[in-house]
Amino acid sequence: MNVTVLVGGVGGARFLQGVRRLLRADSGHRITAVVNVGDDVWMHGLRICPDLDTCMYTLGDGIDTERGWGHAGETWNAKAELAAYGAKPDWFGLGDRDIATHLIRTQMLRTGYPLSAVTEALCNRWQPGVTLLPVTDDRSETHVVITDPQDGEQRAIHFQEWWVRYRAQVPTHSFAHIGAEQAAPAPGVLEAIETADIVLLAPSNPVVSVGAILAVPGIRGGLRTTAAKVVGVSPIVGGKPLRGMADECLDVIGVDTSAEAIGRWYGARSGTGILDGWLVHDTDTAEIPGVTVARVPLIMTDPDATAAMVRAALDVAGVTL
Amino acid sequence: MNVTVLVGGVGGARFLQGVRRLLRADSGHRITAVVNVGDDVWMHGLRICPDLDTCMYTLGDGIDTERGWGHAGETWNAKAELAAYGAKPDWFGLGDRDIATHLIRTQMLRTGYPLSAVTEALCNRWQPGVTLLPVTDDRSETHVVITDPQDGEQRAIHFQEWWVRYRAQVPTHSFAHIGAEQAAPAPGVLEAIETADIVLLAPSNPVVSVGAILAVPGIRGGLRTTAAKVVGVSPIVGGKPLRGMADECLDVIGVDTSAEAIGRWYGARSGTGILDGWLVHDTDTAEIPGVTVARVPLIMTDPDATAAMVRAALDVAGVTL
Repeated sequence: MNVTVLVGGVGGARFLQGVRRLLRADSGHRITAVVNVGDDVWMHGLRICPDLDTCMYTLGDGIDTERGWGHAGETWNAKAELAAYGAKPDWFGLGDRDIATHLIRTQMLRTGYPLSAVTEALCNRWQPGVTLLPVTDDRSETHVVITDPQDGEQRAIHFQEWWVRYRAQVPTHSFAHIGAEQAAPAPGVLEAIETADIVLLAPSNPVVSVGAILAVPGIRGGLRTTAAKVVGVSPIVGGKPLRGMADECLDVIGVDTSAEAIGRWYGARSGTGILDGWLVHDTDTAEIPGVTVARVPLIMTDPDATAAMVRAALDVAGVTL
Repeated sequence: MNVTVLVGGVGGARFLQGVRRLLRADSGHRITAVVNVGDDVWMHGLRICPDLDTCMYTLGDGIDTERGWGHAGETWNAKAELAAYGAKPDWFGLGDRDIATHLIRTQMLRTGYPLSAVTEALCNRWQPGVTLLPVTDDRSETHVVITDPQDGEQRAIHFQEWWVRYRAQVPTHSFAHIGAEQAAPAPGVLEAIETADIVLLAPSNPVVSVGAILAVPGIRGGLRTTAAKVVGVSPIVGGKPLRGMADECLDVIGVDTSAEAIGRWYGARSGTGILDGWLVHDTDTAEIPGVTVARVPLIMTDPDATAAMVRAALDVAGVTL
């Protein structure tokens, strides 16, 4: 069976652990993750791909499980030295171990390798058991239009600055996916959607993770035309995001922080949307015209609990292992 | 008074500590170091300048005093991760704190700043109390022609590979200063030699440190025409280098490992050489036609001992503070 999953960072990576747990690697099932690159950023001359790395480290058992991102056993000495030089930005969590990944990626990119080839090379080490595909090899970066708290001017800042530096606590007006219009899906992405037996939307941030993936031309169309069922998983439980700041993001685009509102925002494939099925937490309810809603526990306490969520998504799609 | 010193790495940096100790910064004296760049190398996409950094960290009180190079409190996690990826080369000591320096330098170089400007920017933090000038902003890298122990073929490798990976323990035929013919002295270098009240050659490796500086067109001529006296300090004491592998380097160019042989190899300005004076250790002797030789203790146990050496060099030149 071919399972294709659209994912962001921490939540997406944990969801993939559940998919991998359910579909044992040795069984011949194939898992492909289409990963958000909207968070990607140049820092200190290094190309950093937070979501790809979070997926890679998580599935490769190299993640700091407590933080959810970055390396286990990470140190921050290069960051401290950069700060001692007065180098900006100084608010980004650039770990020493992490830098090795960025150095290899940056060199390969400068040599002309596309991000998808770089990711494949990096995964040779981590053996994630999931094919990790950046949604695009082109630049498609999420920027955020804010009112700058320092001078009251409206300006666009990189998503990372909004997320990490400001923790989304600035007056925010809109998101822009810079470069998205000219971006094309990376090799294998549309094929993975077209040839899937089921497509899953991880419980990642619907605006800046899944939404940034959908901003790449061709992805939405692929989801609408694939023969596979498309089943999403709500990142909102009881009106709150389980982690991250989906509520702040949803506020910006005028969508309620509820499982139902997000499901409606994704919309039904029978209409103009992308969903066949929608999983909400067992204490939530949702009614979405044209979409089969199932209520199951959505807390990803461990890969087994997450695997049960994935099984429920397969059930909604009528797919059997 | 203007003192200009030609220096390499560890020995050069310690010698500069002595110069700085003798010529108190608040006294209006100016110290300029012309630093070897022959060791400079690209590693993992980073531009690394070992001698400049050793001088900068040493004079900025950031050096690992035991090793003599690299940061105090250094960690090696990025290096370990690069090795885990199988990234080559894996034999270079790339420290986590050190990487911050390389990231800033690499970005500035890629933006078009010359190495001299980069060095000045980095020194804003370290405040070495000495103006550190790379001998050239152009590429002038020391390569070494060896017989490769793996396949018996003769080939040229970067100096760092010869020094760090092989510890000079391979059949070695010659040194080549790649790019030197097209290199020009960096801004300020010739002026520092021309306007000096005394020029000192640190007890650095005469072949791959001072020799690599002399390989840049214009430097030798500047030393021969400056009105200042030029006084060198022997790096060889009792027939042995105090540190480093000067003996292996001298072997390659067919010069004896003795204070006298090196002094003769530098030669007298009254002939075709660059020396007016030559300091040898008090247990050594040297006779060099046209060069005033003085015998003084040359062990740089601490900046005070080194300052005494520097004072002896001034005495040889007839320069008074």
